[in-house]
Amino acid sequence: MKILALTGGIGGAKLCLGLANVLAPDRVIFAVNVGDDFEHLGLYISPDLDTLTYTLANEVNPETGWGRSEESWQCITELERFGAPTWFRLGDRDLALHLVRSQKLRGGATLSEVTQSLCEGLGVQHAVVPISDDPIRTHVDTEQGLLSFQDYFVRRRCEPKVRAVEFRQPQRARLNPRIDLNAIDAVLICPSNPFLSIDPLLAVDDLTDFLKMGRVPVVAVSPIVGNRAIKGPTAKMMQELDMPSTSLRVAKYYEEIVNGFVVDSCDAASKQALEGLGMQVVVTPTIMNSLHDKIALAKACCEFLSELS
Amino acid sequence: MKILALTGGIGGAKLCLGLANVLAPDRVIFAVNVGDDFEHLGLYISPDLDTLTYTLANEVNPETGWGRSEESWQCITELERFGAPTWFRLGDRDLALHLVRSQKLRGGATLSEVTQSLCEGLGVQHAVVPISDDPIRTHVDTEQGLLSFQDYFVRRRCEPKVRAVEFRQPQRARLNPRIDLNAIDAVLICPSNPFLSIDPLLAVDDLTDFLKMGRVPVVAVSPIVGNRAIKGPTAKMMQELDMPSTSLRVAKYYEEIVNGFVVDSCDAASKQALEGLGMQVVVTPTIMNSLHDKIALAKACCEFLSELS
Repeated sequence: MKILALTGGIGGAKLCLGLANVLAPDRVIFAVNVGDDFEHLGLYISPDLDTLTYTLANEVNPETGWGRSEESWQCITELERFGAPTWFRLGDRDLALHLVRSQKLRGGATLSEVTQSLCEGLGVQHAVVPISDDPIRTHVDTEQGLLSFQDYFVRRRCEPKVRAVEFRQPQRARLNPRIDLNAIDAVLICPSNPFLSIDPLLAVDDLTDFLKMGRVPVVAVSPIVGNRAIKGPTAKMMQELDMPSTSLRVAKYYEEIVNGFVVDSCDAASKQALEGLGMQVVVTPTIMNSLHDKIALAKACCEFLSELS
Repeated sequence: MKILALTGGIGGAKLCLGLANVLAPDRVIFAVNVGDDFEHLGLYISPDLDTLTYTLANEVNPETGWGRSEESWQCITELERFGAPTWFRLGDRDLALHLVRSQKLRGGATLSEVTQSLCEGLGVQHAVVPISDDPIRTHVDTEQGLLSFQDYFVRRRCEPKVRAVEFRQPQRARLNPRIDLNAIDAVLICPSNPFLSIDPLLAVDDLTDFLKMGRVPVVAVSPIVGNRAIKGPTAKMMQELDMPSTSLRVAKYYEEIVNGFVVDSCDAASKQALEGLGMQVVVTPTIMNSLHDKIALAKACCEFLSELS
């Protein structure tokens, strides 16, 4: 069975690390959100690709879940002296990846090609691919106006109330040709923010059409555990978008594309309601602190997908 | 008296620091070589401007004479993992300046504007100006072929035998408009490499015409002390270019533009021969280790220029 895992950054990357530990490289493709990508100080930055790459390379900062481990901050301290923007925290080690990527992109390489070469540099064996080599740019409509993703997410720390999210595509983004949907046997939607991390992937028509077709099982892992998000603004955004911040509501949000849903043990009570949406449901611990947690959840997801096949 | 100081990197920067300690900011302009400038990893790098700026900010690495003090090398260690070129040693602190400059240049600022803003960031009061905002690119014709400057100087460590030096100018480089020659009362040629650091400045016609006109005194400080260069390939290059590596030969090289020459005390014996070239000569210690040395030489040069006025 070959799995297509759809993922954003931190939360999704944890499950991907679990998957990479239980599946051989030819058994899974990690399709990553590029809606957060932006240019900063002349560098092309792909936060979700970076977080996943560093996580799989076992070089992610374990305290933040993003950025490099054993990072230092000499460059950004100097940037501040020059009056350059420092709200996006660029570490010295991290900078190397952005420099190399930016230069290769300027030289005409695709984001996929660059990502593959960066993964090779860090010894990552599994396929990490941007959902598209065409730009998709997330913008958040808030009470403070329409904000670009990083302005909302990092600079303003998700504080403005969200009214809507939109994905700008100068031309209709095409599915990354490295993702051969004919070779995919199952799809796993990782526990990432549905609006900010998964929806930009679903903005690629070929992918959404494939998911809606129902040829393969599609399982989503709830990013909400007991009315809260483990990390990030998912729960806060749901409230702002007039949705109860529950796993059930997330499942409803994915209703058209998933036929299996994984919720945390603490949300066991919602199993019946979830099944009422016509989904198969697995209840299992979903909070991933240790590598053991990540592997256990990855195994549970793989078994679930097998059962649904 | 307002002095125009023509300078390259390390050796010249030492004398400039001395000058900055004895002259108010409105009494001197440091006109800097840009022939070494190049693009590397998508960054625009100006080695001589940087060396001078760091030196005047008292933030130059005291061991190398270039780069930042208290530097770290996390980024370049990572660059190596990605297979990026690492022969040009980019430190973490140093990177900030290159990032800021590159972004401002891409945004349409001139090299002069960027340099001024970087100097402000580092608290440098004196005017540090590129000799031109137009590109001048030094190439070195060697027994290994025609090499770009950094390829010759850093990557191949000045090892190939030099046959000639040339300065490529896509359009004829214009003198930086911040250098108002009408307001200049004297010119000092710092003890930099005549072929690699001073000649690219002299490739700007307006400057050379001004120097040849003889309206103001022009003094050069010999970069050769007792047949050797304090640092860098000056002596080696002179031999390869079939010139004896002597102060006298440097003076002869500058014959058309200087009317005063400063040589080190150890070269006192050449005074008469130097005077035979029609120059006034000052013999004084020119090796600058301490700040005291730099100030002493700067004072000697200023007095000499005053006498020649």
